[in-house]
Amino acid sequence: MFSVTVRDHVMIAHSFRGAVFGPAQRLHGATYVVDVEFRRPSLDADGIVVDIGRAGDALRQVLGDFNYRNLDDVPEFAGRNTTTEFLAQVVFDRLVAAIRRGDLGPGASQVDEIRVTLHESHVASASFEGKVNA
Amino acid sequence: MFSVTVRDHVMIAHSFRGAVFGPAQRLHGATYVVDVEFRRPSLDADGIVVDIGRAGDALRQVLGDFNYRNLDDVPEFAGRNTTTEFLAQVVFDRLVAAIRRGDLGPGASQVDEIRVTLHESHVASASFEGKVNA
Amino acid sequence: MFSVTVRDHVMIAHSFRGAVFGPAQRLHGATYVVDVEFRRPSLDADGIVVDIGRAGDALRQVLGDFNYRNLDDVPEFAGRNTTTEFLAQVVFDRLVAAIRRGDLGPGASQVDEIRVTLHESHVASASFEGKVNA
Amino acid sequence: MFSVTVRDHVMIAHSFRGAVFGPAQRLHGATYVVDVEFRRPSLDADGIVVDIGRAGDALRQVLGDFNYRNLDDVPEFAGRNTTTEFLAQVVFDRLVAAIRRGDLGPGASQVDEIRVTLHESHVASASFEGKVNA
Amino acid sequence: MFSVTVRDHVMIAHSFRGAVFGPAQRLHGATYVVDVEFRRPSLDADGIVVDIGRAGDALRQVLGDFNYRNLDDVPEFAGRNTTTEFLAQVVFDRLVAAIRRGDLGPGASQVDEIRVTLHESHVASASFEGKVNA
Amino acid sequence: MFSVTVRDHVMIAHSFRGAVFGPAQRLHGATYVVDVEFRRPSLDADGIVVDIGRAGDALRQVLGDFNYRNLDDVPEFAGRNTTTEFLAQVVFDRLVAAIRRGDLGPGASQVDEIRVTLHESHVASASFEGKVNA
Repeated sequence: MFSVTVRDHVMIAHSFRGAVFGPAQRLHGATYVVDVEFRRPSLDADGIVVDIGRAGDALRQVLGDFNYRNLDDVPEFAGRNTTTEFLAQVVFDRLVAAIRRGDLGPGASQVDEIRVTLHESHVASASFEGKVNA
Repeated sequence: MFSVTVRDHVMIAHSFRGAVFGPAQRLHGATYVVDVEFRRPSLDADGIVVDIGRAGDALRQVLGDFNYRNLDDVPEFAGRNTTTEFLAQVVFDRLVAAIRRGDLGPGASQVDEIRVTLHESHVASASFEGKVNA
Repeated sequence: MFSVTVRDHVMIAHSFRGAVFGPAQRLHGATYVVDVEFRRPSLDADGIVVDIGRAGDALRQVLGDFNYRNLDDVPEFAGRNTTTEFLAQVVFDRLVAAIRRGDLGPGASQVDEIRVTLHESHVASASFEGKVNA
Repeated sequence: MFSVTVRDHVMIAHSFRGAVFGPAQRLHGATYVVDVEFRRPSLDADGIVVDIGRAGDALRQVLGDFNYRNLDDVPEFAGRNTTTEFLAQVVFDRLVAAIRRGDLGPGASQVDEIRVTLHESHVASASFEGKVNA
Repeated sequence: MFSVTVRDHVMIAHSFRGAVFGPAQRLHGATYVVDVEFRRPSLDADGIVVDIGRAGDALRQVLGDFNYRNLDDVPEFAGRNTTTEFLAQVVFDRLVAAIRRGDLGPGASQVDEIRVTLHESHVASASFEGKVNA
Repeated sequence: MFSVTVRDHVMIAHSFRGAVFGPAQRLHGATYVVDVEFRRPSLDADGIVVDIGRAGDALRQVLGDFNYRNLDDVPEFAGRNTTTEFLAQVVFDRLVAAIRRGDLGPGASQVDEIRVTLHESHVASASFEGKVNA
C-alpha cells in the first residue's frame, strides 16, 4: 500500500456541551494541525498516489470553510459537539466529496482510503480514517 | 475508524541481557515519550472516543509505577529484558486493565483497539497494538 | 549562560481589531504550545537553574488563568489585541511576579532572563524575552 | 502486533517528467527523512522485534546507494519518476532483500511487515508498506 | 525583545567544491525547512511585531526564486558554495531588501534583527542573524 | 553571526542528591537528545562555519564516553549532581577541548561560541552556552 500525506492547519473557536468536557464547556479555541493521508494500492502512470499540489489545495479549501470561525455559529454543526474526532470526520467527508467532484484530478479516483489526523496540541490528537468508496 | 491519542513520558534505568544488546548490557537509562492511541468505530453520544482527561490520567498512573525507577529492581520484570517493545506491551496491558476497571469511564468500554508507542530518542521508537477484548 | 526550558499549552478564543488581521478579526481561537526558558549565569548548589517541578507548576498556573477562555471577555485585556506576541509578554510578566513571590523557590531569585515562546501552529510562533530584574 | 522504527536521512537531486509535476520537472532536490517500521506479531527470545543496531546499519546502507546522488543518472531508475512514494517502495524492496540475505540477523526472518515513510518537508511525506513474504 | 517566527520550505539541487565536502561534491539536493524570526523591542499599535501574512508572503517570494532549481546554474551564485549557512545569509539579505522596499508594510521598518534558520535534515541546520539596519 | 547545529543522543542512568529532586533521587535514567550550535561571525573560504562531518564525529565521541553508562559510577562526576544543565556544560567543555586539539579541523579555531542543548523529554530541556575562548 502506498500513501501520501499533506499537512495544513486551521484556527477556530468553539464550546462543548456535556459534563465530561469540564472547563472546555466554556467558549475557547484551538489550532488544529491537520495531516491527511491518501492511500492506494498502486501508483498511477506518473508514479504518484495523488497530485500533491491539488491535494494540498483541496485540504486548504476544506479548512478554509472553518478557518477563523466560531464553530458554535456554523449551522451545519448545530446540536453537535465539534470535538477533534468529529472534525476529523468532517474533513474526511469533504475530501471524499472533493475527490468525487474531480477536484484532485482523475487519478485521485483510485485513492482507496483516507486518514485525517487533527493535532490539537503537542500532547493530543484525534483521527478518522475510512474507505473512500464505502 | 476514529481514534484519540495522548502523550506523556517516563524516565527509567535498566540493563539488558544478551550479546545482541552490545553496550546496552550495561546499566543505562532512557526517557520514553509515550503515545497512546485509542480506537473505536463510532463516537459516543458526546462525540468523543474516550474522555481525554481520564485517558491522560490513566496513562500517567500507569507510567507512574515505573517513573524514576531502575526496572532491573522491579520484581514483575525479573528475568525479562525491559526493551522498548516489551514495555509498550506492558503499558498496553495496564491500560486495558484500567478500561476494564472503569477508570476511563463507562464509554471507554467501546474502545476496540489500543496502540502504544514509546519513543526512546529522535531516531528510534517501538510500539505494541492489539484488540482491547482479545 | 545556563538555561532550563519547560513546555505546556493553553487553548483560548479571541478576536482582533485592525484591518491588518484580515479574517482573524472574527472570533476564532488557538492552541498555544508555550516554551519558557529560564536563564542564569551559574548553577545553584544542587546543580540546577531552577526547580523544574516548581517552574512547570508556575507555568501551569499562569496558563490556567486563560485556559478554555475567550480572551475578549478578560477585563485585564480590554482594548488590547491579544496577539501571540502580546500574550508572550503577559506570560513573562506573570512568571516574573511568581519568581518574586517565591513560587519557584528561593534559588529562582538568581534567574536573570526569561524567554517565553508561544507556538500557534507548526509554521508560526512569537516570543518575548527580557531581564527578570529590569 | 509489535513494531520497531528507526530513522535516517538521504539527500538527492532529481527531476520529474509529466505536466502534473509543474516546476518540479526542473532539476531540483530533496532531503528525505526516512522512517522504517518493522512489524511482527511476537518478540524473539531477547524481547525484541529486530536488532535495532543492524536495522539501522541496513537502512544506512540502502540509503547510502543514493545519498548525495542525482537520481536521474541512476541506471536502475531510467524512465521512472523517482517520486517520494516510488522511492519508499525502493527502500522497502531493498530492506526485504537485506532481511533475506540475513543482514539483520536470523531473528529478522520473523519480521512480517515493513512500512517505509519518506518525509520530504515539514508538510509532506509518502510511504509504502507491505508484507515481507509476499 | 519581541519576535515572530514564520516557517516555509524550498527544494533545490546543488554541488559543492572542496575536499571538506566529501561525497557532497557530487550533484545532490536538499529540502530546507526555513524559519525566519523577526525581532523588535516593542510592538506596534496593533500589538504585533510584523504583519505575519505579509512576512510569510515575503518569505515565500524569496524562496520562490530558488525553489525547484539547481543552484549550480544560478548566475548570482557562480563561484560560491551554496552551503546551508551561505543560503541563510542570502535569505536574510533578501528579506532585509523586502523590508526596505515596504513589502512587509510600513510597521516592518521597526524590525531590528532577523534570524534565518535552514533545517537541512532532522539532525542538521544552519542560521544567519544580523541587524536589519547594519 | 552564522551558526551550524548538529544533533545526536545519549542514554544514561543516574540519581540525584537533594530534596529538590523528589523521586529523581532514586536511580533512574534519561535519553538526552543533544543539539550543539557552533557560531562564528564569518564563514571560511569553503563557505562553512565548521566541517559538519567532523563536528558530528566530535559530538559522537564526547557522548560516547557516557553512552549506556550509570553516571553515578563515573569518577569525574563524584559528588556532583549530573543534572541536564550540568551535563550541557560538560559537553560544552569537551567540545571546546576537541576544537583546541584540532579535532574539528583548523577552521574550527574561528568558532566563537557554542551552545549545547540537551532535550530530556518532549517538555523539558537545558542548555549551556559560552565563548570558546573565555
